[in-house]
Amino acid sequence: MAKKVLKFGGTSVGTIDRILHVAKIIKKELDSGHEVIAIVSAMSGKTNELLNQSKTISKDFSKRELDVLLASGEQVTSSLLSGALIDIGVNSKSWLNWQIPILTEGENLNSRIINMNISKINKFLSDGGVAIIPGFQGVSKNGEVTTIGRGGSDATAVAVAKIFEADKCEIYTDVDGIYSTDPNKIPVAKKIDKISYEEMLELSSLGAKVMQSSAVQTAMMYNIPLEVKSTFTDRQGTKIFDQESIDYTKSVTGVAYSKDDAKITLIGVQDKPGVAANIFEPLSKNQINVDMVIQNISSDQKTTDITFTIKRDDLLKTIEILRNNKNIQYENMSHNDKVAKISIVGAGMVSTPGVTYRMFRGLAEEKINILAISTSEIKLSVIIDEHDTLKAIKKLHTIFELD
Amino acid sequence: MAKKVLKFGGTSVGTIDRILHVAKIIKKELDSGHEVIAIVSAMSGKTNELLNQSKTISKDFSKRELDVLLASGEQVTSSLLSGALIDIGVNSKSWLNWQIPILTEGENLNSRIINMNISKINKFLSDGGVAIIPGFQGVSKNGEVTTIGRGGSDATAVAVAKIFEADKCEIYTDVDGIYSTDPNKIPVAKKIDKISYEEMLELSSLGAKVMQSSAVQTAMMYNIPLEVKSTFTDRQGTKIFDQESIDYTKSVTGVAYSKDDAKITLIGVQDKPGVAANIFEPLSKNQINVDMVIQNISSDQKTTDITFTIKRDDLLKTIEILRNNKNIQYENMSHNDKVAKISIVGAGMVSTPGVTYRMFRGLAEEKINILAISTSEIKLSVIIDEHDTLKAIKKLHTIFELD
Repeated sequence: MAKKVLKFGGTSVGTIDRILHVAKIIKKELDSGHEVIAIVSAMSGKTNELLNQSKTISKDFSKRELDVLLASGEQVTSSLLSGALIDIGVNSKSWLNWQIPILTEGENLNSRIINMNISKINKFLSDGGVAIIPGFQGVSKNGEVTTIGRGGSDATAVAVAKIFEADKCEIYTDVDGIYSTDPNKIPVAKKIDKISYEEMLELSSLGAKVMQSSAVQTAMMYNIPLEVKSTFTDRQGTKIFDQESIDYTKSVTGVAYSKDDAKITLIGVQDKPGVAANIFEPLSKNQINVDMVIQNISSDQKTTDITFTIKRDDLLKTIEILRNNKNIQYENMSHNDKVAKISIVGAGMVSTPGVTYRMFRGLAEEKINILAISTSEIKLSVIIDEHDTLKAIKKLHTIFELD
Repeated sequence: MAKKVLKFGGTSVGTIDRILHVAKIIKKELDSGHEVIAIVSAMSGKTNELLNQSKTISKDFSKRELDVLLASGEQVTSSLLSGALIDIGVNSKSWLNWQIPILTEGENLNSRIINMNISKINKFLSDGGVAIIPGFQGVSKNGEVTTIGRGGSDATAVAVAKIFEADKCEIYTDVDGIYSTDPNKIPVAKKIDKISYEEMLELSSLGAKVMQSSAVQTAMMYNIPLEVKSTFTDRQGTKIFDQESIDYTKSVTGVAYSKDDAKITLIGVQDKPGVAANIFEPLSKNQINVDMVIQNISSDQKTTDITFTIKRDDLLKTIEILRNNKNIQYENMSHNDKVAKISIVGAGMVSTPGVTYRMFRGLAEEKINILAISTSEIKLSVIIDEHDTLKAIKKLHTIFELD
């Protein structure tokens, strides 16, 4: 017997039929002898509908009232699901956040869960009951309704799993797991059976948006076993553990890519302390997020070239700042907004020699030009021409035996 | 300066445009120097939508969870309206029932408001704030979500007016007041400027469903001045006071009717104590609601005729019970399911001689046969053939100068 936290996303509870189906999943877990706490999102589309209503009223709708408004979505799903469970003979109860309570801190629309009372629910679970908790929301110390940001139901699930000391947290969604790359766009994508938190975070921050990153971080910090699985099939999903628990048979776990980047190179920058800071400080002050930064070793020991990538939407603003800021000196600037970032991610990379070389040789065989390179412990990213994206992802799947 | 409770029904807040309009009404009251608490219903159709979802899940959906589900409707309206007020510069705040709290007792779906905490909201009002409270719901002593029955937002409004000692409670709705009879079906219907609680109750229980009866009763008990008015026009509505405050210029205030009645007459019932009880006890035990009861004086001192009316839907069941119950003895039974009940209501009736006679003569002039008569202090009801309904109502409007 284990204590499980099951989280059901918006599409999983998107219709009454699906809520009835989710009730059956929960009953099956209960019948297997597990204690179950279920976290639910709002029915798919509901949060956007409420958001749009608020926007129709005001472009600057009160954040306090928006929290009250949005919280209603998960309340509806919780009561419907709990009612569905009761109808099939399960002793179920929905617990609104103020009834538990789930305490949060921070500002409206962007709070963090700091604690919750577990005694009443634990008593209910040990009596054979199922607790249904609306995700995404909480109550502040002042008794105000708060929400914890889009995708926040994942964060609720992991926080509940942590505070209730659950044995496992299962994220039910509309895909059957984490894929080696985006399965909707890249046909060679393959489902991953096991992945580490770190790899998951790299893939997630690079565009594989199956789970909210901060929820994965929390799970990593408290070593809560996760599983991402489909609500609509019985197949096993993707299990997410710490690196030590995974026996890596492959050096690379997945290939992430993003296509909304732009690259800027400043040529002939003075190679002395403080120069990089002079460049990136004004960008940061203008809310421009710099992703990769590569500084080449200067050949003449006096000047260097600095290449960095930013969101494509920020390109014009960035060029303007670089041109007009007197503290930034360089000989020449080149930029390219038709680039893509391709990253191989794998916790096994560090212990497998030659991964970098194999990636570069593979891309060369496809005549794909590498415009910039950046590496970290479990990730290797390259910037390439955007139109080579698909070719590169396919080649990397072949090289690293992902397909 | 007065303290006002304004209640806005489902159609008044049925769309975002209407919510924006309601915000303007509230701001105008505030700008006139009043303190304002607004009670809101769910957007029109919302409660039915949620109810239907619950019915799709289970014909016997958990009442506890249904309360949680339904309460979300008014929560949405409260936050949208409060956001709309903030957008036009009003210091507004929605107060969910557990945040006040509004304490209720009784069972789920049918609770009663017993108390509420007024200090926080009174402080907010005296600082120039507007408090928005979702109607129809509360919190039990055990911290459970409760609702107080359909139309319960009226009850919330009156309870809030009572406990906050408001000077006035205004019920904003989609009609511009109380009419002498149903204006949607009877063209001669005319708006009433002033009416007593008692008359309002008689009209309400007889089918003029502008306000929930128990809310009117509470207002009467605590002498809270009410006004029913339209959200969509600036015209004065109908003011509801105690009888003493009204200077009656007319003996009759309105004409109510209902068309879903049936009449049963038991002929030759033994005229002795306990007979009526024998008849009505088994009906009551079978949830059959008996409305009018008329017992004629028996001519032979030994038997009498008893006529009573019931809901038309209960006719067959009632006949069966009367036929099969050995304790009920009578010579003959007649029944008629094509009858209507027409009632004239007026607090001025008691002090105006001849009202009864004028009614009977008027109906006779139209060749309308009276099948049964029942009178009370402020009401005189007759049962007539259903197809004479419109003719009777028109005639009564003419006789009593209502049109």
